[in-house]
Amino acid sequence: MYMEDILGRVARDLEHLKQFTATPGEGCTRLPFTKEARAAVEFLAELMRDAGMEVREDAAGNIIGVLAGENPELPCVMMGSHYDSVVNGGDYDGIAGVICAIEVARQLKESGLQRKRNFVAVGFCDEEGMRFGTGYFGSGAMLGNRDPDYCRRFRDTDGISIYDAMQGYGLDPERVQEAAWPEGSIGHFLEAHIEQGPVLDAAGTEIGLVDCIVGIQRYMVTVYGRADHAGTTPMDMRMDAVEAATKVISKIPDWAREKADGTVATTGYMKTTPGGMNIVAEKVEFTVDIRSKNNDNINDIAHRIRAALDRETAAIGGSYEMDTKLVITPVNLSQEMLQIMEESCKAHAYSYQYLPSGAGHDSLEIGQVIPTVMVFVPSKDGRSHCPVEFTKYSDIAKATVIMTELAQELLSRD
Amino acid sequence: MYMEDILGRVARDLEHLKQFTATPGEGCTRLPFTKEARAAVEFLAELMRDAGMEVREDAAGNIIGVLAGENPELPCVMMGSHYDSVVNGGDYDGIAGVICAIEVARQLKESGLQRKRNFVAVGFCDEEGMRFGTGYFGSGAMLGNRDPDYCRRFRDTDGISIYDAMQGYGLDPERVQEAAWPEGSIGHFLEAHIEQGPVLDAAGTEIGLVDCIVGIQRYMVTVYGRADHAGTTPMDMRMDAVEAATKVISKIPDWAREKADGTVATTGYMKTTPGGMNIVAEKVEFTVDIRSKNNDNINDIAHRIRAALDRETAAIGGSYEMDTKLVITPVNLSQEMLQIMEESCKAHAYSYQYLPSGAGHDSLEIGQVIPTVMVFVPSKDGRSHCPVEFTKYSDIAKATVIMTELAQELLSRD
Repeated sequence: MYMEDILGRVARDLEHLKQFTATPGEGCTRLPFTKEARAAVEFLAELMRDAGMEVREDAAGNIIGVLAGENPELPCVMMGSHYDSVVNGGDYDGIAGVICAIEVARQLKESGLQRKRNFVAVGFCDEEGMRFGTGYFGSGAMLGNRDPDYCRRFRDTDGISIYDAMQGYGLDPERVQEAAWPEGSIGHFLEAHIEQGPVLDAAGTEIGLVDCIVGIQRYMVTVYGRADHAGTTPMDMRMDAVEAATKVISKIPDWAREKADGTVATTGYMKTTPGGMNIVAEKVEFTVDIRSKNNDNINDIAHRIRAALDRETAAIGGSYEMDTKLVITPVNLSQEMLQIMEESCKAHAYSYQYLPSGAGHDSLEIGQVIPTVMVFVPSKDGRSHCPVEFTKYSDIAKATVIMTELAQELLSRD
Repeated sequence: MYMEDILGRVARDLEHLKQFTATPGEGCTRLPFTKEARAAVEFLAELMRDAGMEVREDAAGNIIGVLAGENPELPCVMMGSHYDSVVNGGDYDGIAGVICAIEVARQLKESGLQRKRNFVAVGFCDEEGMRFGTGYFGSGAMLGNRDPDYCRRFRDTDGISIYDAMQGYGLDPERVQEAAWPEGSIGHFLEAHIEQGPVLDAAGTEIGLVDCIVGIQRYMVTVYGRADHAGTTPMDMRMDAVEAATKVISKIPDWAREKADGTVATTGYMKTTPGGMNIVAEKVEFTVDIRSKNNDNINDIAHRIRAALDRETAAIGGSYEMDTKLVITPVNLSQEMLQIMEESCKAHAYSYQYLPSGAGHDSLEIGQVIPTVMVFVPSKDGRSHCPVEFTKYSDIAKATVIMTELAQELLSRD
């Protein structure tokens, strides 16, 4: 049966990719510009070639396969997702969407139907932003939004910049702008991704048609106090960075709860300097990640954080910096493409529902300028970014079927 | 003039010791069982030998010099402080007291007066507890309170235990109990130390006579939540360890302010796991250090922290551990010895005042079982545990004069 072939290929490829982790037995850790990333990219390139695609790695570390159409001058249909992961993450986030894109190419080729345009499968580099505290590096570069200065600006916790990491990986950061595609050369963008939330699994739905991606603002905040002996400095004479920082951080979740539209806000990282048990902290660094379908909610929470930092750092006689790491406004996805897929779901009797995406994706970056659509497949218990992340191969296979039909429809157009 | 000789020797020795830091140009970083500690200990041993003392390193890494008296069987008079530092600390905390003890030995020998008992100068190992999150290692071992299990239990942030670190340093942790002195063998303990607080400097006083050392309780708290995607996990479905932890930490300084008796409470270290910007934290570790002259105040704040942890971890559906790192009750110092020194101050026309110690010291550990006294010398602006820590050599020299007179008085007794 044809569906079983699809399921077998998807399962075979994703199982093979599980080995490319820096933390075997403790989930997937595939940070950008590492040997695990290199091994995954080489395997993806091999799969693309086997699917009949012309393959190249671009200047930003994206791996790109082109299934040629009759008229390569027409805007292409692109499909893809990212091959990097968080630390101790799962085996599906991102990489399942890259495998879906390659699988769609296989089905397009096998169908023998006419393709007037190129179909392009992409594995994007560094969507997560885990290593350098950023995000959407590969997809951003494809849109012309990354340059050598950007690469020099962000560093990992070992002090290695994106620039240095790229050089160590065999890429020339001075050429990163060559990864940009000419305006108009990408006609449509499609992405399959695991939901990373509990909605589809709880409802028992096979296919999620994503109509909106929430906006995101990310900040690195540094609160400055003064180092003093924790025993001899009276409470009214200290400038305790921990006190000021925690009086702000502790309020952020409640501000998110006050908002509607599924607004969320998270502090995932905190660091104290110098960090001794018996030294008043002179510095606290912490991150804030705010997301909502409604951009006003995001702006309001960021505003409240600034006001609270003003107040609490003044109370200790200290100061702060609030460094913007990422600002992305919410994106509505392509109604036209969603309707084509809805018809496919009905034809195949796949269960489906519309839902927004609470996670950022390469589609968020790309959807700002190119007609874009996403399909979600269910995540067991909504868990992701952790080793127990799980999605059924049969759901992934079904997603490839409806996305192949969408791609075929788009590719047949003049 | 004799005072100038003393000042010259103290200055020469402390200036020489400044080089033994792991962070040249950024203050003193002399952690226990490191090559900087080894170099300092070798130099102290040389000074002790030059002062006519018999020198040995004990099984806990303490460096000990004995200036023999007529009857070594009598309980000795011991004087000392610690040679380790915090990270990026100052050049006087601890080490100035070790140099004072050696200087007192020199003055005792030069005076030619009769000494019926041994005078023992000690440089203690690991008072700060910076590396392993503990404290008073050398003085505790001298009192018989450290064993191989203790050495195995505590680890530094690289995962190296005290046990491993001692072996790398050339000590046998299995023999650490050999550092204990027989009960009754130490008759009196004297310690000179920088104040590390602003009282003496602000008042322009040369000598601080310390009548009490505050009690200390130290805890390592771990709050457990669950790792989830920061974008797709609704606020009411997450178990955010950062939210629970910061709602407790942010209140601790205010609880300390409510108390009298110079009560202080400090969180100097916080760590989030896994620590990604876009991952809800599954774990937050943080330290609490509480000090007061009044033990009830310490117990009450510890109780409030536990109650708040119960409440806030229940609110997120998480849990916590509160691991006791140190419990020391406040200690009153020897009135008899304080009176002898007060008379000396008057005779020399040194300005002096009584004050409590807000910092823990080796005297805190030792003062629980042996008659003990401390002298403070002024700290400029009260600053310590940082590179700008500063004390005038002339104040240190004056402290050695009154402590030599006290030691001579004690050593002349049968």
